[in-house]
Amino acid sequence: MILSALLTSVGINFGLCLLFFTLYSVLRKQPGNAHVYAPRLVAEGKSMRSDFNLERFLPSASWVRKAWETSEEELLALSGLDGVVFMRIFVFSIKVFTFAMIIGFVLLPINFLGNQLTMDYKDLPNKSLESFSISNVNDGSNRLWIHFSAAYIFTGFVCYLLYSEFKYISSKRITCFYSSEPMIHQFTVLVRGIPVSSGISFSESVENFFTLYYPSTYLSHVIVRRTSKLQKLISDADDLSRRLLHMKSTKYSQQGRKVNLLDHYEKKLESLVENVRMEQSLITGQEVPAAFVSFKSRFGAAIALHIKQGINPTEWNTEAAPEPQDVYWPFFSASFTKIWISRYVAFVACIVFTVLFFGPVVLVQSLTHLDQLETWFPFLKGILSVTFVSQVITGYLPSLILQLFQHYVPPTMILLSSIQGYIGHTHIEKSACYKILWFTIWNVFIANVLSGSILYQANVFLELKNIPSVLAVAVPGQLLTVYSPKHETNGKFWPIVHNSTIFSLVLMHIIAIGIFGLKKIPLASGFMIPLPVMTLLFNNYCQKRFIPLFKSYPAECLIKKDQDDQSSGTMDAFYEKLVNAYRDPALVPIQTPGNGDGRYSPLLQGTEV
Amino acid sequence: MILSALLTSVGINFGLCLLFFTLYSVLRKQPGNAHVYAPRLVAEGKSMRSDFNLERFLPSASWVRKAWETSEEELLALSGLDGVVFMRIFVFSIKVFTFAMIIGFVLLPINFLGNQLTMDYKDLPNKSLESFSISNVNDGSNRLWIHFSAAYIFTGFVCYLLYSEFKYISSKRITCFYSSEPMIHQFTVLVRGIPVSSGISFSESVENFFTLYYPSTYLSHVIVRRTSKLQKLISDADDLSRRLLHMKSTKYSQQGRKVNLLDHYEKKLESLVENVRMEQSLITGQEVPAAFVSFKSRFGAAIALHIKQGINPTEWNTEAAPEPQDVYWPFFSASFTKIWISRYVAFVACIVFTVLFFGPVVLVQSLTHLDQLETWFPFLKGILSVTFVSQVITGYLPSLILQLFQHYVPPTMILLSSIQGYIGHTHIEKSACYKILWFTIWNVFIANVLSGSILYQANVFLELKNIPSVLAVAVPGQLLTVYSPKHETNGKFWPIVHNSTIFSLVLMHIIAIGIFGLKKIPLASGFMIPLPVMTLLFNNYCQKRFIPLFKSYPAECLIKKDQDDQSSGTMDAFYEKLVNAYRDPALVPIQTPGNGDGRYSPLLQGTEV
Repeated sequence: MILSALLTSVGINFGLCLLFFTLYSVLRKQPGNAHVYAPRLVAEGKSMRSDFNLERFLPSASWVRKAWETSEEELLALSGLDGVVFMRIFVFSIKVFTFAMIIGFVLLPINFLGNQLTMDYKDLPNKSLESFSISNVNDGSNRLWIHFSAAYIFTGFVCYLLYSEFKYISSKRITCFYSSEPMIHQFTVLVRGIPVSSGISFSESVENFFTLYYPSTYLSHVIVRRTSKLQKLISDADDLSRRLLHMKSTKYSQQGRKVNLLDHYEKKLESLVENVRMEQSLITGQEVPAAFVSFKSRFGAAIALHIKQGINPTEWNTEAAPEPQDVYWPFFSASFTKIWISRYVAFVACIVFTVLFFGPVVLVQSLTHLDQLETWFPFLKGILSVTFVSQVITGYLPSLILQLFQHYVPPTMILLSSIQGYIGHTHIEKSACYKILWFTIWNVFIANVLSGSILYQANVFLELKNIPSVLAVAVPGQLLTVYSPKHETNGKFWPIVHNSTIFSLVLMHIIAIGIFGLKKIPLASGFMIPLPVMTLLFNNYCQKRFIPLFKSYPAECLIKKDQDDQSSGTMDAFYEKLVNAYRDPALVPIQTPGNGDGRYSPLLQGTEV
Repeated sequence: MILSALLTSVGINFGLCLLFFTLYSVLRKQPGNAHVYAPRLVAEGKSMRSDFNLERFLPSASWVRKAWETSEEELLALSGLDGVVFMRIFVFSIKVFTFAMIIGFVLLPINFLGNQLTMDYKDLPNKSLESFSISNVNDGSNRLWIHFSAAYIFTGFVCYLLYSEFKYISSKRITCFYSSEPMIHQFTVLVRGIPVSSGISFSESVENFFTLYYPSTYLSHVIVRRTSKLQKLISDADDLSRRLLHMKSTKYSQQGRKVNLLDHYEKKLESLVENVRMEQSLITGQEVPAAFVSFKSRFGAAIALHIKQGINPTEWNTEAAPEPQDVYWPFFSASFTKIWISRYVAFVACIVFTVLFFGPVVLVQSLTHLDQLETWFPFLKGILSVTFVSQVITGYLPSLILQLFQHYVPPTMILLSSIQGYIGHTHIEKSACYKILWFTIWNVFIANVLSGSILYQANVFLELKNIPSVLAVAVPGQLLTVYSPKHETNGKFWPIVHNSTIFSLVLMHIIAIGIFGLKKIPLASGFMIPLPVMTLLFNNYCQKRFIPLFKSYPAECLIKKDQDDQSSGTMDAFYEKLVNAYRDPALVPIQTPGNGDGRYSPLLQGTEV
């Protein structure tokens, strides 16, 4: 790229930026756009003032000031700790890139003053940007030691930032925990592998076990039941009720034959609902050896969670309970052996799927080579000679097929993750995301090995470097009005940013070692080696120092918080809520549809179909 | 090897076996040998009957019967669970080798009937043993499928044995735990990283923390103190006292000048003892931020052990306490950061030591090549030409130097392990053993790469295969009289046997895959692949199913046992013992030596110098 091209590009982008800024500041003030620019306010029932004035149509920068002036406390109250951490990641990225820019301004003249790349000095605008890069510094030049120092200084600065962020966010996690309301899932553990005892049900077994060993802290339990048949019935009834509702709303326009059909459907729906009711009353016998066990204190739940319960390690297995609305009820594999097997099955299936996906890729590649296709299938010769057909096949079909196949990747990965035995939607989605990441890396890798470009592979990894900036791409002002938290992780995603930053630093060091080698200054290359080692040691220290706080809360916090709650006097009301919190939506008594007002109400409450 | 040579060897070994058996059965009955053949009885104060009779000098097999007839219950009472597990390993090995022998007898004729190796049938005694091995089966012969089946059957049998042993031993661990007396270390955790609080000592800090958060289960604590100076003084005093004692016992034979020296030494010792007493009284201020914290119940200790205690993960770190007599007091690094750093330092030092040890190996190798030595150091030519010198240098010196260097390996590794932050002698020794194992593998590997023989490397790994038989090499009858358990692990070493057996099986499978390939029967090779996969899956299942029981006892057991203890009414006496159990031997008040009877009593009680 040449300098003038770069400057043109900068100019165009700056202009576009200004245009979008103006448009945004006007459009966001129109009440009609509230659902786009302030969905959070809409969801909360607050609406914008719709009085007409000139100010509404003048571009202004007031929102920037507002976004800038919002304090962390306000943000915390509005969007939770996740919002705050998100903002801090944004600010962290700005700091890193600003520092990198400052270092860049120091290095630019040094690079420019080199003469490794021979150039014409008179024609500056047409100069290649290469003359500003390290390639222009003379081989073996002592000036390279400035680059060397820059790597050390930059790494030191970033590590300092990382450490202070990690420290700040983890202390914030504790503060938020202290100030939070009691939450259902903090008091509950999921118990799997309840052993079969002759004569008594799983529910009695759980009751006996926990009243015996945790008499002072055990509160209640909810046994999981096999509801797959019921779920099918309810979803059928739901479909029918939806169709009926649609017909009713149009019945006045189409009299006659339709009314009979309507009667028929209504009868069918009634029998279905009757069936659901019967199944719900029968379900009590169909217990799964798993239960949500609730305790009177967070520390009680933590004890049951962290200490192996049963003599047989395959029985009485405990794990952290997800939030009640996050439970994924359908695939509730419960026994140790079943989970053990399904985990391997999912692992193998994921590998097979990822490898087999290579098939469509090859197919698509063959489509772009029509001549090869003709050699393989000679009978296609006639059709392929038609220009339109060949254009569609080489131009449109390949991307269509790939898109089609790629469309099935996420649902497949979610299915695989769900049979692995995860119990929370969030866990399933997280696991599926990792699967898709590996899937993508593998397929891009294969595709690029085939296309022979090794640089593309490096790109895949370099993309990881962008995670902080990708995360930071959202305009912070929008957190105030757009972002509505569904699920609070208390900043559990910060370690991802930390790890990818460390990864990028080490990658930078490795590249630097290579460049100093190429630039014939092996001493710098050698002295560069301690830097990645120290960075990794720093990372290891951070992991040990902070990560435990991102996994579970320590005894000190749990007990303190429990004591506070006990003295607040509100716990009895909370316990009542706790007892009924974990409930399979398929077991909620269903409402009869079409009760006069004609408005549609879903049969299956609380589920997202 | 030829057949006749094998038979001769078998004959000689059988004869020797008979001879040793006879000698053993006579010698073990002589009272004078009691300290060799029955040290356990001697230690327990029981002595053999020393009445003279003829029976004493006749070889007999009664001890075999006695060893055979000893039931597991008797063995458990005599030698603890470790003894029982040791015996079971012995029996397990016999079972495996018997089964292998049976399979061998089926395979031998099949191998022998092949004619891959052309031979003369008339001269059977001089035949190579190769004709009995799989090499003699014809390439591509269907008879190889019998070998194939043998691998599957043998693996299945061994896995079945492993599973039932694992199950039996882990259930036995629980039974023994239930029937055991309360043990000090079960009620105690070691806490490191006690944070500095202004104004109060570490001891007060521990007291405050645990009375606040564990008011119902916390019992007491013992703070660790810096006693390195004291230990030096005591060891000096101990040396002097020993020398004094030696002089006193010989003073009557050497009168005169010696008496003055004796007086001088006695004065010096007195001042040393005074010093020790003063140091002991001053030591209260020199607290280390580490403490042994004891609880009223095992479950209380388990909670403190398994749940992170402090808000800062580098503070209030808990780990299982070793038995009081097993504590390694000298290197008591306490802070998180110190342990973190010293772990890396020890790791790097171990690698450096292992790699640098290659120096002596090269030196030794150069000594065996005198001509090279002469080229390097021409001035040695004269000396080296003397036959005796050259013989010593090439024959004796190399092994002497190697032995000398190898002599320093175990103490070095123990030193490295002790600075790593382990707190128990047993942990330090275990860690040192692993270091020595890797050291040996690395050095043998290097030595063999140099000597170019790749087969030697395989041998190193094959040696692992022998662990069960090495462990089983001790005659079981001796467990009854020789083995005196110092430290009970409750069969914690069984997983080592399990893992090495699995390793050997998988190695066998890999070799089988190779052999079937060489024998041109690729189908068998292919069908062999699932076997190691299944074996590893089996191993993974066993790890999940049983290993947790070998790491810590589950809540169910701990609480049950605690409840039993509470109802037994003996706990108050035990608590008194518990409070004073962890005590640095350097802080025990010292006795004045030479108190009349002239018998030597060590100044430093309870330490092994």
